[in-house]
Amino acid sequence: MLAELRGLNEECGVFGIWGHEGAAQISYYGLHALQHRGQEGAGIVTKEGKKFHVIKGEGLVNEVFSGNQINDLKGNSAIGQVRYSTENGRGIENVQPLVFRSTTGSLSVAHNGNIVNAVELREHLERQGSIFQTNSDTEVLAHLIKKSSGSLTQRDRVKKALSMLKGAFAFVILTDDGLMVAQDPNGLRPLSLGKLGDAWVVASETCAFDIIGAEWIRSVEPGELIIINDKGLQSDRFAQAADPAMCSMEYVYFARPDSDIDGINIHSARKRCGKRLAREVHIEADVVTGVPDSSISAAIGFSEESGIPYELGLIKNRYVGRTFIQPSQELREKGVKMKLSPVRQVVNGKRVVMVDDSIVRGTTSKRIVNLLKEAGATEVHVVIASPPLVSPCFYGVDISTDSELIATNRTIDEIRELIGADSLTFLSAEGMLEAIGRPDNTKNCGQCLACFTGEYPTEIYSDTVMPHKKEIV
Amino acid sequence: MLAELRGLNEECGVFGIWGHEGAAQISYYGLHALQHRGQEGAGIVTKEGKKFHVIKGEGLVNEVFSGNQINDLKGNSAIGQVRYSTENGRGIENVQPLVFRSTTGSLSVAHNGNIVNAVELREHLERQGSIFQTNSDTEVLAHLIKKSSGSLTQRDRVKKALSMLKGAFAFVILTDDGLMVAQDPNGLRPLSLGKLGDAWVVASETCAFDIIGAEWIRSVEPGELIIINDKGLQSDRFAQAADPAMCSMEYVYFARPDSDIDGINIHSARKRCGKRLAREVHIEADVVTGVPDSSISAAIGFSEESGIPYELGLIKNRYVGRTFIQPSQELREKGVKMKLSPVRQVVNGKRVVMVDDSIVRGTTSKRIVNLLKEAGATEVHVVIASPPLVSPCFYGVDISTDSELIATNRTIDEIRELIGADSLTFLSAEGMLEAIGRPDNTKNCGQCLACFTGEYPTEIYSDTVMPHKKEIV
Amino acid sequence: MLAELRGLNEECGVFGIWGHEGAAQISYYGLHALQHRGQEGAGIVTKEGKKFHVIKGEGLVNEVFSGNQINDLKGNSAIGQVRYSTENGRGIENVQPLVFRSTTGSLSVAHNGNIVNAVELREHLERQGSIFQTNSDTEVLAHLIKKSSGSLTQRDRVKKALSMLKGAFAFVILTDDGLMVAQDPNGLRPLSLGKLGDAWVVASETCAFDIIGAEWIRSVEPGELIIINDKGLQSDRFAQAADPAMCSMEYVYFARPDSDIDGINIHSARKRCGKRLAREVHIEADVVTGVPDSSISAAIGFSEESGIPYELGLIKNRYVGRTFIQPSQELREKGVKMKLSPVRQVVNGKRVVMVDDSIVRGTTSKRIVNLLKEAGATEVHVVIASPPLVSPCFYGVDISTDSELIATNRTIDEIRELIGADSLTFLSAEGMLEAIGRPDNTKNCGQCLACFTGEYPTEIYSDTVMPHKKEIV
Amino acid sequence: MLAELRGLNEECGVFGIWGHEGAAQISYYGLHALQHRGQEGAGIVTKEGKKFHVIKGEGLVNEVFSGNQINDLKGNSAIGQVRYSTENGRGIENVQPLVFRSTTGSLSVAHNGNIVNAVELREHLERQGSIFQTNSDTEVLAHLIKKSSGSLTQRDRVKKALSMLKGAFAFVILTDDGLMVAQDPNGLRPLSLGKLGDAWVVASETCAFDIIGAEWIRSVEPGELIIINDKGLQSDRFAQAADPAMCSMEYVYFARPDSDIDGINIHSARKRCGKRLAREVHIEADVVTGVPDSSISAAIGFSEESGIPYELGLIKNRYVGRTFIQPSQELREKGVKMKLSPVRQVVNGKRVVMVDDSIVRGTTSKRIVNLLKEAGATEVHVVIASPPLVSPCFYGVDISTDSELIATNRTIDEIRELIGADSLTFLSAEGMLEAIGRPDNTKNCGQCLACFTGEYPTEIYSDTVMPHKKEIV
Repeated sequence: MLAELRGLNEECGVFGIWGHEGAAQISYYGLHALQHRGQEGAGIVTKEGKKFHVIKGEGLVNEVFSGNQINDLKGNSAIGQVRYSTENGRGIENVQPLVFRSTTGSLSVAHNGNIVNAVELREHLERQGSIFQTNSDTEVLAHLIKKSSGSLTQRDRVKKALSMLKGAFAFVILTDDGLMVAQDPNGLRPLSLGKLGDAWVVASETCAFDIIGAEWIRSVEPGELIIINDKGLQSDRFAQAADPAMCSMEYVYFARPDSDIDGINIHSARKRCGKRLAREVHIEADVVTGVPDSSISAAIGFSEESGIPYELGLIKNRYVGRTFIQPSQELREKGVKMKLSPVRQVVNGKRVVMVDDSIVRGTTSKRIVNLLKEAGATEVHVVIASPPLVSPCFYGVDISTDSELIATNRTIDEIRELIGADSLTFLSAEGMLEAIGRPDNTKNCGQCLACFTGEYPTEIYSDTVMPHKKEIV
Repeated sequence: MLAELRGLNEECGVFGIWGHEGAAQISYYGLHALQHRGQEGAGIVTKEGKKFHVIKGEGLVNEVFSGNQINDLKGNSAIGQVRYSTENGRGIENVQPLVFRSTTGSLSVAHNGNIVNAVELREHLERQGSIFQTNSDTEVLAHLIKKSSGSLTQRDRVKKALSMLKGAFAFVILTDDGLMVAQDPNGLRPLSLGKLGDAWVVASETCAFDIIGAEWIRSVEPGELIIINDKGLQSDRFAQAADPAMCSMEYVYFARPDSDIDGINIHSARKRCGKRLAREVHIEADVVTGVPDSSISAAIGFSEESGIPYELGLIKNRYVGRTFIQPSQELREKGVKMKLSPVRQVVNGKRVVMVDDSIVRGTTSKRIVNLLKEAGATEVHVVIASPPLVSPCFYGVDISTDSELIATNRTIDEIRELIGADSLTFLSAEGMLEAIGRPDNTKNCGQCLACFTGEYPTEIYSDTVMPHKKEIV
Repeated sequence: MLAELRGLNEECGVFGIWGHEGAAQISYYGLHALQHRGQEGAGIVTKEGKKFHVIKGEGLVNEVFSGNQINDLKGNSAIGQVRYSTENGRGIENVQPLVFRSTTGSLSVAHNGNIVNAVELREHLERQGSIFQTNSDTEVLAHLIKKSSGSLTQRDRVKKALSMLKGAFAFVILTDDGLMVAQDPNGLRPLSLGKLGDAWVVASETCAFDIIGAEWIRSVEPGELIIINDKGLQSDRFAQAADPAMCSMEYVYFARPDSDIDGINIHSARKRCGKRLAREVHIEADVVTGVPDSSISAAIGFSEESGIPYELGLIKNRYVGRTFIQPSQELREKGVKMKLSPVRQVVNGKRVVMVDDSIVRGTTSKRIVNLLKEAGATEVHVVIASPPLVSPCFYGVDISTDSELIATNRTIDEIRELIGADSLTFLSAEGMLEAIGRPDNTKNCGQCLACFTGEYPTEIYSDTVMPHKKEIV
Repeated sequence: MLAELRGLNEECGVFGIWGHEGAAQISYYGLHALQHRGQEGAGIVTKEGKKFHVIKGEGLVNEVFSGNQINDLKGNSAIGQVRYSTENGRGIENVQPLVFRSTTGSLSVAHNGNIVNAVELREHLERQGSIFQTNSDTEVLAHLIKKSSGSLTQRDRVKKALSMLKGAFAFVILTDDGLMVAQDPNGLRPLSLGKLGDAWVVASETCAFDIIGAEWIRSVEPGELIIINDKGLQSDRFAQAADPAMCSMEYVYFARPDSDIDGINIHSARKRCGKRLAREVHIEADVVTGVPDSSISAAIGFSEESGIPYELGLIKNRYVGRTFIQPSQELREKGVKMKLSPVRQVVNGKRVVMVDDSIVRGTTSKRIVNLLKEAGATEVHVVIASPPLVSPCFYGVDISTDSELIATNRTIDEIRELIGADSLTFLSAEGMLEAIGRPDNTKNCGQCLACFTGEYPTEIYSDTVMPHKKEIV
């Protein structure tokens, strides 16, 4: 599915490095590889001795770090973030990493995920006199660390603070004497540890290791706090590991095809989902086409298993960026198409299987089915390489309220009719779990299925809302 | 093959429209669809009554036309160009369309191709007192038109001027009373005519019609001069059609997969080349992968025919742009990879068929083979969906001198060894012609094979050089 | 003296407005008029109902607020700041107004001045669990307000917080139900109250009122807290007024000639200083010239009183901005002059009186004397329209350590020799006070003379340093 | 008078250098000093051996040459231009220097002035087959040079071409073996020759020599062609010198106060005009104020002679640039003032003499008189340091048609009433000529008075129009 065309968005990617003289440059390339996880802001904080240097800005990594200014980011440790932001979370003050300055030493934090009790914790902290400069749940962690009793060591203060958080979180924390990395007790968001020569690196996805030539070591474990400093790496825990529950949508849609999550390659998992789908449904058709970019792997798998030839039936327009002039309503009605073009000769007179990774509101699916039919497809069979999305995510994916999801309270056939397809098939949940094939023996093979089932792996607070929906004026 | 990684470049795309109130906007979207044909400059000229408005600049279409300035391009006729430029042809003065102002009426010209007798014509014109402000062979046409006897009609002056040109050219010419479109006698560069409501449109590739919702009517014919004005469209000829000789590399590499050239879809032609290749060679292998973006279609075809599964073994980095900070030599040596990443889990321990569309200097092929082997491929079999490139192109493709071409004066096995592949196979010329499948009964099925064979369809002047190689100081 | 050429810098200008539908635009023009008080950052915060909108950035007002984005700043109340920043205070996070988000209502603060006990207060707050995101002393005020007992009204919390601050401060504070304005007990920084129709406005200088057509009402009084909300304006006090001590350098150098401070016009005061100087010294000379821009008024006064003709002997280069390419050392040695040019015909063969407002390190004075002599001046008599600067300022002017001041520990004649002048005269302190002519009967006529005398009107803490000198890493 | 507020604009400044390794950088600083002569475009062409390098763009010098690109301008000779352009002359193609490429050697031209027979020459050239790419009269010169018989030497071809031009022109011409400099037979535009070490430099104003540390040698003479090459400098003539007729408005308004024209310093000349004016009229008043920037010198002179104190009654807003957000009509009506502020305390209750250099349409004068009265001035006496402008200029100043000039067909008293002044006085023509004090014994002391008298020093063609008014579509 086309990220640009709908409201299903990952909220961030994080990166960290300790002990490399090119820390800022390495972070730049690492964040660049994570760019698909957030295109609205980017930042890098480096540590030079006790001094923290910061560059942050709105826009893509290569827009924020243009020219030579990256050379101002001196020091051999760094953390960084790329950020997706919703309406309420916009503004330069919300771009991470956040930096907290103190006469006794500074602290910088970057975060991927969503803390479901952030509002409660924030109200609690405000009652104790804390003031906040962002809308971000990330700021809560810094306050909790600061508020912890001064008699504790820093590590213990961080552990105590982390233990108060509920929800999904992958944190990288830079202090004046170390890099800390933490993963929530369910391990809801991916976070990997690697080595680049003698330096330690950490990233939301392994594709960030490949670009910098780092070696993957392992995933950060649920409930784990890793402390890296000049003495080496230590593993600690701030919480018991709960049932592992890696976000299914990372496999289905978010992660890059060349990343691995917990040892499973994303492209391969998606291809297996496509194959499994071809075993779950039989369609008489002439061509299989995928909706670029994220559905290509599943489409290839579907084609391979079904024997129906795979074709480029839809072409994505590579150069459409944010600065692109949008066609006027009049021109749009006259047929100006942006972003996605059907390939007439490929689909004209053909029965087409259109593979997509998921359906959110259904409006995009409807448009693409229509594009294919206008280009001459005689039948369009939509097959979706994941189960229907019926429940909101509270763990950092921007599909917030039930009402927006086309599959909530609708039958498959009602959805099919709404999007104008000749048939519509979703992959079964079992099929998806088997196809992805995580080794866990635990419930749901260690995957979170909340958006497909409404069963959430963590407590959900009565006030639980996406932080960007709770309007903090 | 990755355009960014090597020196095989198309030199332009052109667009024209007559009789549409949104002429500038339509041209913007049209040029945008042609962006792959030239990323270094763009321009649009509109005609409002007798007045010509111009916006040109270096950069991508959406960089040149940012903000609201496109609204300054009033008028209901327009021509435009996207431009690739070599070292000597840089600079804003070379960005097209060129505009020639005259007290008796203005003229604007945009061009795709290369005029092989440009230097001879230029010297001739200079001896007669002409002065030139660009290095471009396009300027020659305007001078020839102007120099023609004043007693001729404008149409006859244009015909006479066109008849003096040798080489490859697709021209769009905007005058104060019409839009003229011309194709060289061999039809070396693609140029299509379409309709958008009542308006006529012309474009280098049909993908520009799809984006604006225009209908394809036909290709402009070799030797044809089309004159469009408020009375309608007239077809004339400035030359006898010679043997048709459409550039083969348009099918192989340049054109967008969703474009058709002379009724043949590019993706489909490439896929057939891939299939044919799989019939011409037998390889024992585990996976097939294509070098993105242009080789994907051939790789799919190869996989389908050979039965070897198609995988995403190589991922292209979407966000690498011109403003991207390049890694230092030191970081590059430490392994920082840009633009292309192998997918380790897909290729590790596998025998890989790597499909590419062509090999130019071989340096990129060598690098990709090496990337795949470092990622664990046990064997890398390179298959190329076109014959070896052995001769320079004089018709608008930037592969200028023999010495740069790895296949000139080398055996297949020598090339294989240089790029480090376990085997290397090129598609045969016959195979390519059959797979593309143009309907012509003429020589080479109406394709130009000069870069594969050294046999040129036009005269080649003793001074024939690429205009950007002849240094005009 | 040329601000660009030396280290004597005002630290900010502030602006506020309550009750005007064009609040953001009015603030933009107001800040623009205050641009000379800070060129390195600018920001505006507006309040729309309970919602705060923010735009901040590094650069000039018209760079930060380019395009249409100012229209996003909805609401009919606003505060804004222009900022000068020293090395340690750079970075977007230090640009004001600061915004503090809270579930119970937000708060925004902008500040001009320097709080001398900021470090002590900060350490105190950190011990109580506060965390800081900036290096700015402004953040301290917000924490103090928040920390105050919850049983107090907001007004009382603000008063209590303000009463803990020592030093120079002019605050504008936007809360969700009002605009508060506070002036330190000595009134060290200028701050004026005005009306624009029914709306209240406040600004560091009255020139901001003139540009928007507002009427000056009065100065904010030392120790006063003004609360403006929809019920009107109330005046309160958070402290007893101490001896008034308006910064003398505002009259001498910082403020715009068209501003009035406490009813005294700046140009007129400077001209009177020039006249007084001409009465304090007798010089035989041919021409009087001022160092643009700030010394022009004094030079005119000196000329008028002495009868020596006033001439443009030095021209300032209007277009030299931050993006200007600096000449290489080699070119500089070859004579490339930027920023200031002597007018050869005016000074050649003449005895020149060069009037400047002050001397800081002396390096610029030396250069200008040298420029004049190279241009043919036979004698250069430097007259300074203020007393020698001998002590650092702790109240918001960036002349921080004694060692940089040429006049500390040097006789007038030693300074004269260092700068290469034929004579050197400073205005006496009494002369300056009389010439400025504030009506106060109090000590020093209500002016702060600390930088001339080392006698500070407030306590100076043992740790007192400029916040940008205390390195908070 | 404020250039920004009215339509009286110089059309260019030119610069040239031969034989300096830092030719591009030196040109940059030189053009920078000439920036006041044109703010809408800038360009530099350098010559490296036979190769010409070009950078041109719209905007200020420091906008066009930002970053490091100036280092691409290799070579030790250069010419450059800053450009003012009217509506019809906009667009990058009109930015100079123009470059003409030829197989036998290139040519680059930059120009200040206006050729009154450009249209005739252009029509003549077009009939001979020349085509034009700009609206500029500068292009005509290049065509004329090219068209000249090939048997002539280049110098003779240039002389022949120059001899065909009528009007005002100062040309710098860079060829592959020399730098040529030409001045029209009346010497209507200033052009000076200087030396920088061993290198020769040429510039429209001497302030460009001061910034680079060059020594002024002499003015280029009317009708002179200077040829500079590696053998040295040669002076030739392409025409008999006619009556010298230096543009009076250069002294009155255009040139920088620190420039000298034909040995007369501009500031000093203006001051003498102000003094003369004070002798020509007696006014009872309290203060004298000048309209910044160009009237300051005259105001100082008026004050000195009349004994009425000089004050800063009007302040120019330094930071108002092209990117500045203009106030809405509503805000303007509410009093938002840009660009110019009266200083209330200086003018309130006073009888003010407001000195300006000239009046064009009168709208600005009316506004300033009004500003002063609103600020409390009891009387405003406008004195103008030049005679009334009654006729259009055809020599490169943008005051094109009589109808726009308030003084055409109006009595002084009618003008006074229109602008709302209490009295209005213009300097007499004799007064101006004597005050400027050129040494020539010739008619009008060698000054052109055409705009004051309607008597033009050259032929005026029936078609004579400003090139930007003749619409060449």
